[in-house]
Amino acid sequence: MGVVHRFIGREGAFGWEGKAPEEYVTETAKGASINWLIGPREEAPHFAIRYIEVEPGGHTSLDNHEHEHGVMILKGKGRVLMGQEEVEVGFGDILFVPGSERHRFRNAGDEPFGFLCVIPRL
Amino acid sequence: MGVVHRFIGREGAFGWEGKAPEEYVTETAKGASINWLIGPREEAPHFAIRYIEVEPGGHTSLDNHEHEHGVMILKGKGRVLMGQEEVEVGFGDILFVPGSERHRFRNAGDEPFGFLCVIPRL
Repeated sequence: MGVVHRFIGREGAFGWEGKAPEEYVTETAKGASINWLIGPREEAPHFAIRYIEVEPGGHTSLDNHEHEHGVMILKGKGRVLMGQEEVEVGFGDILFVPGSERHRFRNAGDEPFGFLCVIPRL
Repeated sequence: MGVVHRFIGREGAFGWEGKAPEEYVTETAKGASINWLIGPREEAPHFAIRYIEVEPGGHTSLDNHEHEHGVMILKGKGRVLMGQEEVEVGFGDILFVPGSERHRFRNAGDEPFGFLCVIPRL
């Protein structure tokens, strides 16, 4: 049978049974974690789905890489830099960040800002 | 700049600005719709993200195809057949259906059952 990762609702943060978030450490990230929900461990051949959460006051790296992102906002409020523009986002908003476009996800509220982020298998 | 599809919260159903769901018509599907949020129109080169919604009493096709699915449940309650087993799912649960595994998503509640479904570019 396929794989099920059960959602664990927690106050202020999302989690899944058997899945531990890792700190998202880069020179320019602050207060961000990443949880690989579907990826190499599930032997997913073509894509990965990660849950990224950013603390109030935090942000992901200022990134610019070849692969694209498909994103759905799940929790909190954010400001997302894509190219030269920054947009405000909240629950349910869908973003597509093309390859080689500069981007950064910033928490713009006072609760955790969380989103699903799909990438091709790298 | 990248693409933003704004979420439109509606009672009983999810929607996005500028995105119309299509009826999911197959011989074995019943009461299901599909909304392509990220895919060929966004020029996504490697994967697509769709929102699939199933009415109470409805279900998707009994499918068995080469490509895999990555799924997150967003709304309602469902029963998902994967291989020989059926599992109950609700908000936040993550599923990975490997390629060539038989699967079907059935609404098991009295409100719409909705989920994100990622596939590789076909």
